[in-house]
Amino acid sequence: MTDYKTISGGVTAPNGFQAAGIVAGLKASHQPDLSLIYSESSAIAAGVFTTSQVRAACVDYCRQQLEKQASAQAILCNSGQANAATGQQGWDDAVETAQLLAQTLKIDPTSVLLASTGVIGQRMAMPEFRAGIPPLVEALSETGGNAAAQAILTTDLVTKTIALETTFDDRPVRIGGMAKGSGMIHPNMATMLAFVTCDAAVSTSLWQEMVQRAAQRSFNQITVDGDTSTNDCLLALANGQSRTPAITEPGEKAEKLEAMLTAVCQHLAKAIARDGEGATCLIEVEVTGAPDETAAQQVAKTIAGSSLVKSAIFGRDPNWGRIAAAAGRAGVPFEQENLQVKLGNFLLLKDGQPVEFDRAAASDYLQQAAKGTYLEADTVTITVDLGSGEGSGKAWGCDLSYDYVRINAEYTT
Amino acid sequence: MTDYKTISGGVTAPNGFQAAGIVAGLKASHQPDLSLIYSESSAIAAGVFTTSQVRAACVDYCRQQLEKQASAQAILCNSGQANAATGQQGWDDAVETAQLLAQTLKIDPTSVLLASTGVIGQRMAMPEFRAGIPPLVEALSETGGNAAAQAILTTDLVTKTIALETTFDDRPVRIGGMAKGSGMIHPNMATMLAFVTCDAAVSTSLWQEMVQRAAQRSFNQITVDGDTSTNDCLLALANGQSRTPAITEPGEKAEKLEAMLTAVCQHLAKAIARDGEGATCLIEVEVTGAPDETAAQQVAKTIAGSSLVKSAIFGRDPNWGRIAAAAGRAGVPFEQENLQVKLGNFLLLKDGQPVEFDRAAASDYLQQAAKGTYLEADTVTITVDLGSGEGSGKAWGCDLSYDYVRINAEYTT
Repeated sequence: MTDYKTISGGVTAPNGFQAAGIVAGLKASHQPDLSLIYSESSAIAAGVFTTSQVRAACVDYCRQQLEKQASAQAILCNSGQANAATGQQGWDDAVETAQLLAQTLKIDPTSVLLASTGVIGQRMAMPEFRAGIPPLVEALSETGGNAAAQAILTTDLVTKTIALETTFDDRPVRIGGMAKGSGMIHPNMATMLAFVTCDAAVSTSLWQEMVQRAAQRSFNQITVDGDTSTNDCLLALANGQSRTPAITEPGEKAEKLEAMLTAVCQHLAKAIARDGEGATCLIEVEVTGAPDETAAQQVAKTIAGSSLVKSAIFGRDPNWGRIAAAAGRAGVPFEQENLQVKLGNFLLLKDGQPVEFDRAAASDYLQQAAKGTYLEADTVTITVDLGSGEGSGKAWGCDLSYDYVRINAEYTT
Repeated sequence: MTDYKTISGGVTAPNGFQAAGIVAGLKASHQPDLSLIYSESSAIAAGVFTTSQVRAACVDYCRQQLEKQASAQAILCNSGQANAATGQQGWDDAVETAQLLAQTLKIDPTSVLLASTGVIGQRMAMPEFRAGIPPLVEALSETGGNAAAQAILTTDLVTKTIALETTFDDRPVRIGGMAKGSGMIHPNMATMLAFVTCDAAVSTSLWQEMVQRAAQRSFNQITVDGDTSTNDCLLALANGQSRTPAITEPGEKAEKLEAMLTAVCQHLAKAIARDGEGATCLIEVEVTGAPDETAAQQVAKTIAGSSLVKSAIFGRDPNWGRIAAAAGRAGVPFEQENLQVKLGNFLLLKDGQPVEFDRAAASDYLQQAAKGTYLEADTVTITVDLGSGEGSGKAWGCDLSYDYVRINAEYTT
């Protein structure tokens, strides 16, 4: 299932996609703040959105668009203002930006999807936004993936992009992606945005199902501090420009495409968790022996989200008690006599009871992770077997450090 | 409904209760570690226990006892070891301590309830425990409430006790309580234990219902870091020694008793939240305008538990965005156009949109709370109206400080 390779280019790696990112002046910092992904032909589109009752105008806009038609040609994203808690004015601004972009691109306004991230409760900097659209379109390029990825960042420390390639009938098929993560932004919301491009030819319904499942196995399984944003969204376009035969039925090719899509989403999700505010390492939790995948994911996410587990990892403390306690409160039934907990290769708990282990070596394992390089050696692995079924699932988080508190306490609205 | 007054004495304030707390040597620190509450006559008993799948032996023991008979005469609690993740040996130890205490008190072993808090995965210090029981019984006294409250603490900074008194037919009726809180303990679990004594005469079924409801409106509505312990429990005894007529039906007297019981539980719950690790203030969240009380409680608890809200309060930042975002993701449907948020007396959000407010004064309000005295001036109040119904509910938490991370990161197993 993993016969794909990593390539460069991010969202512009797949055929027929262009992208751009520019400084339009929406951010006081004069960092890039306007980002565009453009497909040269109409692409099928799928979206996954925040479940919050408090939603940004762009989220409502995309949901409405995608209910009407499951296709799009452009994704316009700004950073600087989130366009949330902005009422009717915010909605009008969203509609206007979509129309302006459509005019400039000479496409139908219904082919434009929108995303925003930044300060909530403030109106978008519309003069700058309006003035920025022509140069943004002008900057579109087949190598613009990284510029686009830059322009969606807020307090993220690094850009988050990935592209994978496989072959169908000896022709390359590619999926690219970019995301922004959990760096909070004035006035401080954890917004996760992810955009995926794909040049496979695939039916709308299959693509939508794949995107839903991939999101469930990636973005929905990361946790930095348990807060959900008003603006969270994943938008995924597939434009068929690989010129490979259309995938319209479940089967080997669909599975191969979904595996690659899931890998793209998991890469971006892990990059977001790794870049969690103040984080020194990525925590990967794998749960096996659960009644089903959903139950396993639930337990994994509860462990990855536990403040006690997170601060123990930051303290380089091989604390099986906190891991077991988090598993126990996750709402999934299991027999504690069957519980097994591993930290890296160290078996800490077996049959629900602690076992002897080399505490210094286990602490050293945690210490080393904090010194690892980005997304390579810096992953702490927690493996939990519930001994109560065949279901397995993963979740990702990061440790809880002094810097998390500093960033979120000292950043005054 | 609030015609009761605060009195001294804690769990020994109600008639016919004695208590004791001693140093038995279960803790390396030689702090008090063995606690006993004793009713001179058999009392009806109700319990509320952790919902975790990973439970201490004492929790399973109490649940079994209370399923067999809803009465008890003694509650034996040790601190130092939690007797969780200890397997069959832990169960046998629990049974032995109950039997030893029953022998010494000359009561039936089935009249003994058990609680433990401390290190998990370690066997209780049985030689010290055995040797401690005779002097513990010897120390029983009608003024022993505070000593008992001391002996259940772990890393708590203060004891948590309360006693309230009202009159039924011109005779005093009292409820006392003590609790330990969210100070974590080596190897670090947030255990909440609470014990309530009452000298009213009340039917078993009414008492059990009252205790369940009071727990739901107090202990189940506090959050320090979202972690649930293996040992959490509330045990409540009512021995009828006030010699007032038995309350056997719902009605005015039952309501009066329940109001007092709820007040006792809320006092203890707030004391636990206020003593959260590293906390500088108590956060009280009141939600109104929800579909029902449960929905209101859910939203309140989500806000009180949000790491972003908690760190904003620590940073003295009147951050309505984080409060609105937490409300939005609580799983309760509402129209964002109706959302209203107040911080103290400052209106921050109205009709889902930010309003002008005196930012410096609001920040000062938060600053003052941190300087308040214990459970008096140090409460930050967040009031949220969802505008979607008549339900209201409260939750309590504390701010998230550097010290939380320090305590939980640097405490090595």
